Amino acid sequence: MTRAAVLGAGSWGTAFAKVLAEAGTEVTIWARRPEVADALANDHRNPFYLPGVQLPAVAATDDHERAIDGAEIIVLAVPSQSLRGNLEKWNDAIGNAVSDHDASLLSLAKGIETGTLLRMSQVIGAVTGADERRIAVLSGPNLAKEIAAGQPAATVIACTDAARAVALQQASATGYFRPYTNTDVIGCEIGGACKNVIALACGIAAGMGLGDNSIASLITRGLAEIIRLGVALGAEPVTLAGLAGVGDLVATCTSPLSRNRSFGHVLGAGGSMDAAQEATHGQVAEGVKSCTSIRALAVAHDVEMPLTNAVHQVCHEGISVSAAVGTLLGRRIKPE
Amino acid sequence: MTRAAVLGAGSWGTAFAKVLAEAGTEVTIWARRPEVADALANDHRNPFYLPGVQLPAVAATDDHERAIDGAEIIVLAVPSQSLRGNLEKWNDAIGNAVSDHDASLLSLAKGIETGTLLRMSQVIGAVTGADERRIAVLSGPNLAKEIAAGQPAATVIACTDAARAVALQQASATGYFRPYTNTDVIGCEIGGACKNVIALACGIAAGMGLGDNSIASLITRGLAEIIRLGVALGAEPVTLAGLAGVGDLVATCTSPLSRNRSFGHVLGAGGSMDAAQEATHGQVAEGVKSCTSIRALAVAHDVEMPLTNAVHQVCHEGISVSAAVGTLLGRRIKPE
Repeated sequence: MTRAAVLGAGSWGTAFAKVLAEAGTEVTIWARRPEVADALANDHRNPFYLPGVQLPAVAATDDHERAIDGAEIIVLAVPSQSLRGNLEKWNDAIGNAVSDHDASLLSLAKGIETGTLLRMSQVIGAVTGADERRIAVLSGPNLAKEIAAGQPAATVIACTDAARAVALQQASATGYFRPYTNTDVIGCEIGGACKNVIALACGIAAGMGLGDNSIASLITRGLAEIIRLGVALGAEPVTLAGLAGVGDLVATCTSPLSRNRSFGHVLGAGGSMDAAQEATHGQVAEGVKSCTSIRALAVAHDVEMPLTNAVHQVCHEGISVSAAVGTLLGRRIKPE
Repeated sequence: MTRAAVLGAGSWGTAFAKVLAEAGTEVTIWARRPEVADALANDHRNPFYLPGVQLPAVAATDDHERAIDGAEIIVLAVPSQSLRGNLEKWNDAIGNAVSDHDASLLSLAKGIETGTLLRMSQVIGAVTGADERRIAVLSGPNLAKEIAAGQPAATVIACTDAARAVALQQASATGYFRPYTNTDVIGCEIGGACKNVIALACGIAAGMGLGDNSIASLITRGLAEIIRLGVALGAEPVTLAGLAGVGDLVATCTSPLSRNRSFGHVLGAGGSMDAAQEATHGQVAEGVKSCTSIRALAVAHDVEMPLTNAVHQVCHEGISVSAAVGTLLGRRIKPE
């Protein structure tokens, strides 16, 4: 039986732990807060981040060494901007798992690190020193609440080592959760990081009362700028036309379950950043942080990303939503 | 002042006539039913297909010769499977407008003709004998009701003659309606025809209770099969990644305003074809007819279109929705 440590007990970490357990993998979840670990260990529930969902038998602890000890798959499921800090604490235990069990490191985090502008797999490599061939990423249209409910979903597991991607696929495939493998790690990570920013833009538009034509246009223009950035960084366009690109983008931009879309909706309806944060249970949406680093990455590679730029203006430069959206919708007519 | 005839007074023909008029073009609408023509001419309203919308000053008639006489733009806004029959009746008047006014023929129809497997622009060319350089198509994320309400929207006008596309763009651009030009007529038409079938699939899935992850996955797989067919027919992939591909697909597949999605929803919830037709005001969704011709086109060009095939099985072969969707979601795990 394959052993996995899921490090992070937010909604997606918890839901993915359920998937792994139901795929026949032995799972231990690490939660930062002892009360979350207790609820998971004793009741197999996570009332804090995934209320109402009954998990199968999983172990849980707030002691990362206990979680990582013996793991062959280490799932990194913490917010992107806290990944480095956590990895630094976990580094010895991860090093042991790598040397003793040839462990794979699987990132669920979606973002670009502020300051360094590194993708999450690059942060993992930089901190742990692990070879890129043992670092994988998982990305796709995966709203945690639906997957926890056993709704059918597909995803992409990308690793430059195709055989390792297949092993991870087998450890996480269930009747309702269907992973496809890919070797384009860059494409998967760029799709996953950028879609949160576009979802903010769609939320803003919807909050302003704009309809489905506008949302579809924003998704299309968003996809175009994601592909431009991805290609500049070495991604394959076909990855971004697939589940980790279009798929994740559409799910995040159209679902009321998406935190980034919900956050933007409050802004579009005239609410402040504080009000938006309050409406999303005190959490700042990932796209609010990522838009700064994605914009910097775009500038560094001379890529035009007007939607990301507009979201940055709204979130960090005090530009009104109407001014920002007006800019986007009012660009003069020209060939597509 | 440019003169346009809009032939067809359904919801999209009526909404596009409003766009043209508000862009400063002189518009005459032709309606098949005298009572529709009367309501349009006398009240500038179309209570039959676009209730609640006040149009600007447009002329209207049920006499096609009167509508077409003097037109420099002839907009073809009838259902795809009735386009040929109508063109045969209108042929003399169109011929006069072409010879006397260098008229452009602009298709709003989205579909593939049953039997001949021709795109709408090809049907127009075949019946009227017009050179392809005067035949244009308009396609994009354009839910009629939203555009009639003045919601911002973008679209694509494609013509092999780029200058003619620009003239049509200028005749239809308003503050809220933004057309982009393109020369890839094939890509625009394939995107427009195929999306109705994928919207049926998404409606079926939603009607069965599947969530946003599943819908996003279906849209992604749908896009992949549309691109495969388009490329086989000579379309540019970039067109299908744009407004006439992804944009139209996302709008049609996610909006409750989409007739194809609504039709599929009834089927997915266990309703019969008759019940679905009743729920969509007696009209059979375009995708129900188009899936037969699109599937035939795919077979003729050796292109795999599993979603289109599944929709065809449900609509025309008596396969249950659960069997059809099960096939799609249950395909075995493999590289993307």
